[in-house]
Amino acid sequence: MAIGAQSASTNASLAIAQRSLGDPSISYPLMPPLTSGCPRTSTEEIAYPVEVVFDYARVDRALFDQPPLPGLERWAPLLPPLAPGVAMQDGGTPLVDVPTVAAWAGFDGELYIKDESRNPTWSHKDRLNLCTVSAAVLSGAPGVIVASSGNHGAAAAAHAARAGLPCIVLTSLTAPTAVLRFLLAYGAAVVTPPPSGHLPAIRQIVDRLGYMPMGNLTVTHTGHPFGPEGYKTVAYETFLQLGRRVPAAVFVPTGYGELLSGAWKGFRELRDLGLADRAPAIVACEPAALGPLARAVREGRPAVAVGEAETEAYAIACTVNGYRSVLSVRDSGGAAMTVTDAELYEARRVMGRDGLWPELSSAAGVAAFRQAVAAGQRFDGPVVCISTSNGFKDLDGDRPAVPQLGDDWPAVQRALGHYGLRV
Amino acid sequence: MAIGAQSASTNASLAIAQRSLGDPSISYPLMPPLTSGCPRTSTEEIAYPVEVVFDYARVDRALFDQPPLPGLERWAPLLPPLAPGVAMQDGGTPLVDVPTVAAWAGFDGELYIKDESRNPTWSHKDRLNLCTVSAAVLSGAPGVIVASSGNHGAAAAAHAARAGLPCIVLTSLTAPTAVLRFLLAYGAAVVTPPPSGHLPAIRQIVDRLGYMPMGNLTVTHTGHPFGPEGYKTVAYETFLQLGRRVPAAVFVPTGYGELLSGAWKGFRELRDLGLADRAPAIVACEPAALGPLARAVREGRPAVAVGEAETEAYAIACTVNGYRSVLSVRDSGGAAMTVTDAELYEARRVMGRDGLWPELSSAAGVAAFRQAVAAGQRFDGPVVCISTSNGFKDLDGDRPAVPQLGDDWPAVQRALGHYGLRV
Repeated sequence: MAIGAQSASTNASLAIAQRSLGDPSISYPLMPPLTSGCPRTSTEEIAYPVEVVFDYARVDRALFDQPPLPGLERWAPLLPPLAPGVAMQDGGTPLVDVPTVAAWAGFDGELYIKDESRNPTWSHKDRLNLCTVSAAVLSGAPGVIVASSGNHGAAAAAHAARAGLPCIVLTSLTAPTAVLRFLLAYGAAVVTPPPSGHLPAIRQIVDRLGYMPMGNLTVTHTGHPFGPEGYKTVAYETFLQLGRRVPAAVFVPTGYGELLSGAWKGFRELRDLGLADRAPAIVACEPAALGPLARAVREGRPAVAVGEAETEAYAIACTVNGYRSVLSVRDSGGAAMTVTDAELYEARRVMGRDGLWPELSSAAGVAAFRQAVAAGQRFDGPVVCISTSNGFKDLDGDRPAVPQLGDDWPAVQRALGHYGLRV
Repeated sequence: MAIGAQSASTNASLAIAQRSLGDPSISYPLMPPLTSGCPRTSTEEIAYPVEVVFDYARVDRALFDQPPLPGLERWAPLLPPLAPGVAMQDGGTPLVDVPTVAAWAGFDGELYIKDESRNPTWSHKDRLNLCTVSAAVLSGAPGVIVASSGNHGAAAAAHAARAGLPCIVLTSLTAPTAVLRFLLAYGAAVVTPPPSGHLPAIRQIVDRLGYMPMGNLTVTHTGHPFGPEGYKTVAYETFLQLGRRVPAAVFVPTGYGELLSGAWKGFRELRDLGLADRAPAIVACEPAALGPLARAVREGRPAVAVGEAETEAYAIACTVNGYRSVLSVRDSGGAAMTVTDAELYEARRVMGRDGLWPELSSAAGVAAFRQAVAAGQRFDGPVVCISTSNGFKDLDGDRPAVPQLGDDWPAVQRALGHYGLRV
């Protein structure tokens, strides 16, 4: 049997409806995906997302008697319908032990990094876009569109390419050069937004052409309702990788909170299906310069907008949060933490000693975890920090100066001394 | 049971000796690794490598009754001894189906990419460096050193960091900025070579400090004898991913040919252990500007040196080959092909349509495969092209120009028209 035979049938999904998070008594048909959130409960100030409802009574628990290999179509019953040919061995990312990070954080328990840079386009976003591009294909949309600082756009472009759909990516004027090449490599139409901003431009293309948005269209974040479902697989894999255990806590780099809420839903399902005896605390980790979710949680509000502010963690630099992330933090007994750029740089430096090179934003989980330990938090079991992507996605900057070796030994010693190596 | 419990015991290896490829009747003890090749058969013109010998009679075939997950320590019996803590969930990279590439090449069989960019440092080199850094640890070396254009150095640095060993990387003055950051992220001492060149500098540091070289020290290539053993796992995984089938042919981007010869040895072992009924043809894919292996094979010589020449496939731009790659091509009934930079760019462009963005060098397998099909070659089974790394490793170049969307519809149409999208 060839590996290709693993491709999911669209029939395998047990998704049956969409449900409003603004008022869970309100349901909608599964199709079309409500990409602008719940039309009945949303207001001009806040957009409430919808989520996918599954027929859990029909879930065969043997689904979890398989190894956590790549290929998310293996989880098809608990995903929205997948279109043939879109999947590309997504997910199946490893848990990596990080003893140096654990020691640095003052933690003597089990600490792991879920290394999402080992996805097809080297970020977690592949899991989301497998689901959203599939939705576009199954809806008959003639193309897809997304505003993205990089990872989301590349994952959309790669999966759209496989689906044979055109993909428009609105990216920032300050996108790193490498990220522009990355987006263009998959044949995406990469453009910078017009003076009126990216939301009106996307709405215009959606309205005129019927393109399906892979990202957000609303004033506070709802995103594509099928997207976070893809992130549930982070929970399924982690559960199996820990030997059918659930972490005490999961620290998640957080922009709009889709990864956060998807992972939470996956763990909740494992608990509700009776496979796990608990679910972890979900800890959101935002840049301190912004932190809309932290503020929403602190103020007991469903969503807030904060002012623009500078952070080099551009992949998670969001000025609004989504309601689904508030629910996830609250329902899991988690927290919404913030980390400074200086903490991110230091966390990343230490992750390098364990052989990992995350994107700056991806170090947010580790940076917040250290804060939590320093604040005296205890963990009743393993802790997992999700690292979302790799250091190649970072902002352009100066070329590092590296010394030249000399031919004579004193010159060699001088060059190595630059790194503190005394030889 | 935690994932950490998968860590290998060094006792699990069935490696028993080193054997000269210059004269297979000559054996050496397993330790120390003969990093300058076979001392008895090598001459001033050619260095003959040694390889690791295993006690195959003691291999439990149940080793192959496991899923091809990351974590090469699962293959410990058929690897050189692994040191504790060095492994970081290496390997376990997926086979991805590439229908657009297959159609472009005019091939109607099964075609897969083995996507090695899904390793811990996003290239195949992690498999090699797990073995060579382990050898350094188990030999008591106080550090490791390697000359590398990027991938090899980063994989060495990441694994050395986990081992707590200093790592010196000699890299090129023209290394891409991103690659310098990549190497520095793992705490490596990154230097450019002295006027006398990298070989004398490495030998000096090896001789004075006892650092172990992770790469080549010799006039023609031998490399570290334990390194290619790590690449055998590419064969083991592929065999399992194909449902216990063996490909008809494997196309391998080729610099010094370590990946090539390691993969060949793995497939040969599967056949010799009675697990597979055949072994694939191994096809080396070198840059046409250089091609020392192609010339050695053509001229029936064990190794040749060619003159320097320009290619943008810098990761596989080698002016000498190693004897082990000549043996692999010959013994497997394979071939040594070459591809131009133009063919690499075109192959990479088409791979993007299947959602893959390889480093330019990594497209060599696909480029050569198309040549082979065009030349009328037939394949009696699936074909696998190995893609070694990702496009983020490529040479610095100009920032791509991307159009700005206008606010009015004609301006939107113009911007999208730049990409041939008629909307």
